[in-house]
This record gives sequence, structure tokens and C-alpha cells, in this order.
Amino acid sequence: MNHSTGKNPGSRTTLPWTFPLADRLTGVRSSPVREILSILSRGDVISFAGGIPDPELFAVEEIRAAFDHVLTHHASKALQYASTEGEPALREQAAARMSRQLPTTAAQIQITSGSQEGLYLIGQALLDPGDVVLVERPTYLAAVQAFALSGARMIGIPADEDGVLPDELEQLIERHRPKFVYLIPTFQNPTGMCMPAGRRHQVAEVLLRTGTALVEDDPYGELRFSGDPVSPIAALPGMQAQTLVLNSMSKITAPGLRVGWIRGEGQILRSIAIVKQAVGLHSPVTDQLAVARYLATNDLDRHIGRLNAVYKSRRDAMHTELARILPEGATMTNPDGGMFLWVRLGNDIDTSHLLPAAVEEGVAFVPGSAFYAHDPDKTTLRLSYVTNSPDVIAEGIKRLSRAIRTHSKQPSPAAAR
Amino acid sequence: MNHSTGKNPGSRTTLPWTFPLADRLTGVRSSPVREILSILSRGDVISFAGGIPDPELFAVEEIRAAFDHVLTHHASKALQYASTEGEPALREQAAARMSRQLPTTAAQIQITSGSQEGLYLIGQALLDPGDVVLVERPTYLAAVQAFALSGARMIGIPADEDGVLPDELEQLIERHRPKFVYLIPTFQNPTGMCMPAGRRHQVAEVLLRTGTALVEDDPYGELRFSGDPVSPIAALPGMQAQTLVLNSMSKITAPGLRVGWIRGEGQILRSIAIVKQAVGLHSPVTDQLAVARYLATNDLDRHIGRLNAVYKSRRDAMHTELARILPEGATMTNPDGGMFLWVRLGNDIDTSHLLPAAVEEGVAFVPGSAFYAHDPDKTTLRLSYVTNSPDVIAEGIKRLSRAIRTHSKQPSPAAAR
Repeated sequence: MNHSTGKNPGSRTTLPWTFPLADRLTGVRSSPVREILSILSRGDVISFAGGIPDPELFAVEEIRAAFDHVLTHHASKALQYASTEGEPALREQAAARMSRQLPTTAAQIQITSGSQEGLYLIGQALLDPGDVVLVERPTYLAAVQAFALSGARMIGIPADEDGVLPDELEQLIERHRPKFVYLIPTFQNPTGMCMPAGRRHQVAEVLLRTGTALVEDDPYGELRFSGDPVSPIAALPGMQAQTLVLNSMSKITAPGLRVGWIRGEGQILRSIAIVKQAVGLHSPVTDQLAVARYLATNDLDRHIGRLNAVYKSRRDAMHTELARILPEGATMTNPDGGMFLWVRLGNDIDTSHLLPAAVEEGVAFVPGSAFYAHDPDKTTLRLSYVTNSPDVIAEGIKRLSRAIRTHSKQPSPAAAR
Repeated sequence: MNHSTGKNPGSRTTLPWTFPLADRLTGVRSSPVREILSILSRGDVISFAGGIPDPELFAVEEIRAAFDHVLTHHASKALQYASTEGEPALREQAAARMSRQLPTTAAQIQITSGSQEGLYLIGQALLDPGDVVLVERPTYLAAVQAFALSGARMIGIPADEDGVLPDELEQLIERHRPKFVYLIPTFQNPTGMCMPAGRRHQVAEVLLRTGTALVEDDPYGELRFSGDPVSPIAALPGMQAQTLVLNSMSKITAPGLRVGWIRGEGQILRSIAIVKQAVGLHSPVTDQLAVARYLATNDLDRHIGRLNAVYKSRRDAMHTELARILPEGATMTNPDGGMFLWVRLGNDIDTSHLLPAAVEEGVAFVPGSAFYAHDPDKTTLRLSYVTNSPDVIAEGIKRLSRAIRTHSKQPSPAAAR
């Protein structure tokens, strides 16, 4: 005879059982991008929402061959428990790749299950409840989610078209004493903007002067279509030890593999490894060895060159089509690389209200408010140009145009910029 | 001119930069098992330390074929972003397998990167700092680590050879109001013991009466060599919704794949998915699809039958050899399944002091104190019998015997049980 006396009745004769949740989940929501993605599976919707690489561009045969090699010649190792820090062969490859811009040894690499895990591990290692993290305005929403689970408070740093403003950054540091500053300086998510070298030096100077740590997220840096490469802030004098850099294979090889890494120096790597061990012992070994094999036996630069040629044509297509249909007063970015265009519609158009109309027309985007830690500009939206061909992009932007017209009850939008 | 004024000097002219760590890392240590594993790479040491499957027993060809199939026929999906909850094909396979003991739908399965991630996600979803988790005495140390990162306090439940004592469990629940009770009822880690059906009913009755959640960890249940199968506690009337069950492919297929799952009901799955999304978006897709393919096209029961025949002979070998060498007053378990024998040396032998002598002799184990949330029995140790052949086990136990003699300065240990 079971009957419940606790606050969570477990007996079948009373209310259904519910687990009492931890406070840290209060206010942490599922990613709006992922919610949109689940809507998309419904049917014929052209999606500019997620930063989803075009699977046509995956190096399928090379990756298949790498897995086959690993499971043919190194199966005992590939299927066994392994070290939390990551497979030595992959750490070597990651270090070699990073060293083009920033001298790095294999011992300075912690392998992670994508950049997302890297962000989460850093949050767990560094953030106490109530701590402040300074972030870009707007910024990558899943980073905010990862840090929020550690109980941190995110505060946005005002920015112009070159990235965060050094004076504002310094004032916010003095006022809030953040545990770290989180930046995506190269082809930022969501804006696509790249911080110029001069601004990077100014930002580094502020961080060094105030003794503030930097978490530099760099998943898009190699997706450059035009302009000259800019070194990461971590590579500037004095910044190496004070910065944790995140890299990922997701955007330049394949996201489904979930292979990324953190580059750091000193004791912090040990603490990150302790967290990683508790979170999941280590990343899957087969994937790590296969990616290491893929990197050792293929010319990744050549592959990235192919990606960039395709992505450039898609960015061009989207920018051109958008210029035709945006209402007067709207603005958009025209990035030199990465995956995203950022649009400010203005005209009091709340893009989260526009979205249902857009999905009705058969096109999807992410409303910009999702990317703000606070005080969102609700007239903004993010469009990914990497998933679809120029023809599909043209059709999608036409649909977006119809949605804007319907939503705004404006029969004929003026051409923009 | 960069000079530091913060508490964490970043300038090269002052002390080296150190990151200030989060409080949650205080007292969270690296797993002693993993520390021992790193010692082992030194050379000719026979390890009974980790629960490391024998790689000779991996179904390498079948797993290789599964990966090859996935990357030949489903590469676009395998290499792409995917849902946080897991691949539908794998959730179906997991649900079908669980349903042999407990009716389960695919929607009740959250795929995790091994059981370890499952434990961590549950801790993040349910535990606030200061919350109590009741655990077995001794228990799986990495679960304690995962829960500790959420700020929880672990309290051990007294047990006899049939598992936790229902009366003691109820008293501890009344006193501490734990968020949940964590049990490994079947072939427990570290003791190898299996809770009989009668005790399971008594435990379930206490949990139902007090409205207390159960986290039931079951990675070893299918590794049974003798005796009749016992259903999970989750399968007892009224317990389904109140229990989260953890399963893993690590012990029955291969740990390097990091594929496991949580079985739950209702809203809690949504909260766990939100945490998983922040921790790493989703588990690697190639691995998930390959495991689903492996399960769909192979007879896992037959494979497990082969494993169990081998592991039985190794358990027998270790038990027989240990019986010859244990000092008078020592005891050990003789489990019907799983991976571990648990030894209580008694005789005031602190096994953490014995370990260096053992490694010197060329054999390793895990000192039992690592498995206690508090008040350890320091004379205990855990021995895994699954990694080595009977011959190697015999040699390893001889070495252990020499280490015990050296350590105890007893020239000739009496035979034990």
C-alpha cells in the first residue's frame, strides 16, 4: 500500500509525479534557434535560421575514409576509454593549426565536444552565481545559455561597426568587475562583423590594464571571403595566458562530429579537465581519431577554399536580394566572412512578430532579440546565407519581402540602401 | 605600455596570470581512478584498477561496418547538426531494449554521451547548492563528482550484503529530505553486489511513501554470469515516473563511443534537454547512427553472452586466486555479474598506503576510500576482473600478495576464506 506524504506525491492515486527542478534552470530557456529548427521540419520552408552548413559541401568520402582507417587499424584504442584532455594525435593537429597565428603546444589544447561544450566548461570552471560576464551587444545566444547555467549575469558592451567600444568596455569592467569578457571578434555571431586590428589592440590594452580575462570564441575565422586575415586578440603581446580561445571543426568540416577545442595556458587547463571529467569523462575517441586522421591526410585549407568560394556567392546573392526588398530606413551588414547577415529593419517592426508571417510565407530567420543579453533591438534579425543555393536564397528573400509587406500592411516597400 | 592593476596581473613584468576559479571546484578532485590510469602508462603494471573492458572482446568488424554504412548512406545526416534529444533511430533501439523490463517509448529516452553525462545532466537539472543526495556506502565515485559540481552534499546509506537498509534509508530521508536517492542496484560499483527483488520492493515502498525521487544507474545489469535476472526498481508499481534510469553501451559494446541514455517520464525530460543543449547541443550524430545501425543489424544478446562467458572465467580466476592470498580476517564479494570484486583486507591495512607498494610490485587497484562519500573504510579495495586473462590475473594477484606482505611486514600471510 503506497501512499504519498511528501511534497511530490509519487502514488498513482494522487497528482502525477513531478521532479522539483534546480533554481539554476529558472530563466534558462531552450534556444530559440532550435525551436525554430523543429518548426522547420514541418515542410517547404526555406530556412535562413540556423548556421547550418550545406551538407553538399561536406568532405564525405574523406571523412568516411578516415573513420574506416581508424576502425580498421586502431579499433582497440578508438573504442576504449581514453584521457579527458583528448587524443594526443588530435591535440597535435589542433596545436599545429592554431600555431599559424598563435604559438601553441599540444599540452595547451583541451579537446571538447564542439565549441558549445568548451563554453560550458569554461563557465563551470570560472563562474560563481552572481558573477558578471561582459558580452557583445548582440552576442551568441547559446554562450549566454551556457554561462547562465553557472549562475552568471551577462551585461552587453556597446559596439559600433568595428566591435566593442574600448572606453565603454573599460567603464563596464570598472563598474562590474567581470570574471571575463566574452568576444567573437572574427565574423561575429550574429552580426558577421570582424573587429579590425587597431580595435583589437585597444581592447587588449584595456584587458591587460584592468587584469581582465578574455574568452575568445573563433569558430568562423577561417571562413574569410575577402579582406586580409586578422590575428586573434589572444596573439597580441601579453594576452596569451589571459585568454582562453575556442576553436571548432563544426564550421570548417562537419558539426555532427562535435569536435572542438579550447586553447589555454597554465593551471586553468587542469580545472577545465576536472569539469570535463565530471561532465562526461572524455569526448568520443573514434571521432577524435578520425578527425586527426582526416587532418593528417587531407588539405583542409583547400577544402576551406572551396567552402569560401561557395559561401561568397551566397553572401553576394543574399546581400543583393535583400538590398532590393528592405524597407526604407533598414540597414544590413555585408561581412567579409562567416555565416550571417544582420539586418535592422527599423520601422518599429518587431521581428519576433514578423516570424510567424514569414513561416506562413515559407521562410525562416532568427529574430534579433534572441541575441541580446538585455534591452534588445527588436527590429533586428539574423539571416544565414550558407545553407541554400543562390536561387533558393532569391526565392527565400522574395518570401521574406511578402511577409514584411503583409506584416507591415505596407503594400509596396521602398528599396533600401 | 601594459601594466596590471587588477588582482590578476596580466602583464609579463609581474606574476604569471592565474584565472580565479569558481567556488564549485573547491573540493572537487580529479578521479583517483584516472590518476591511477595515468600512472599505469609507465610500464609493465597489471591493472585491476579501471573498469576497462578487454578490447579483444570489442565487436570491431560489426562496429566498423555500422560506421561505414552510416557514412556511405546517411552522411548528410550523420555529419550535420541534430536534435538535442538524440537520433530517433537510436532512441527507438534504446526504448525497445529497455522495454524488455520496463515499458518505454522513444520519447522517454534522452541520449547522452555515456552514463557519466547522464549523471551530470540530472545533477544540473535537479540539484541546488546544499541539496542532499543519498548514496550507497560505498558508491560510484564519478557520480559523486558529477553531483558535487552542482553543489550537492552526498550522504551514505548503511547497507548489508543485499544493498541499502530500508529502515536506515527512511530515517535518512526524513532527516535530510534529499532531492533524490542514487542507487546502482545491479552489480554495484564498487562492490559488485546485486540487490534481491525483495529488498527492491522494500526500497521502492520507502521511496513511494516518502515521495522521494530515485536515480537508478544500470550500466552493468546485462553482464550477468549466474543467478536469475532482477527487474530494475523503476519497473516496480508506482516507481516509473519517480525514477530516472541510466543505461550505457559502454560496458556491453564499447566505452570509447560514449553512447548512453536516460529513461524518464514527463516534464523532467524537457529540463534535462535544456541542460544538455547548454552543455553541448547534442551528442555526436555519426556515433549515434552507427550504434543504432549496429543494434539493428546485430544480435547484441549473443555478443553479451560471449562477454559474460569470458568475464565469468575471469571472475572465477580472481576469486580463486584471492582466496589463496588474502590475510586472515579479510573478506571479499563474489558477484553474479558486473566487473568488480570488492575486498576488505581489515588488519588495519590502509589500502591507499598499500597502493604504492603494489605498483612497485607491478599491480594496481583502486583504494576503497575513493568510493565513500564520507567515513571511508580504509582497508577496502576494488579489483576489476574484466581486463585481463586468467593467467594474467593469477600473476597480478601474486604480485598483490607480495605487496600486502611487504606492506604489512608479515612474512607469511595466513590463507583466508
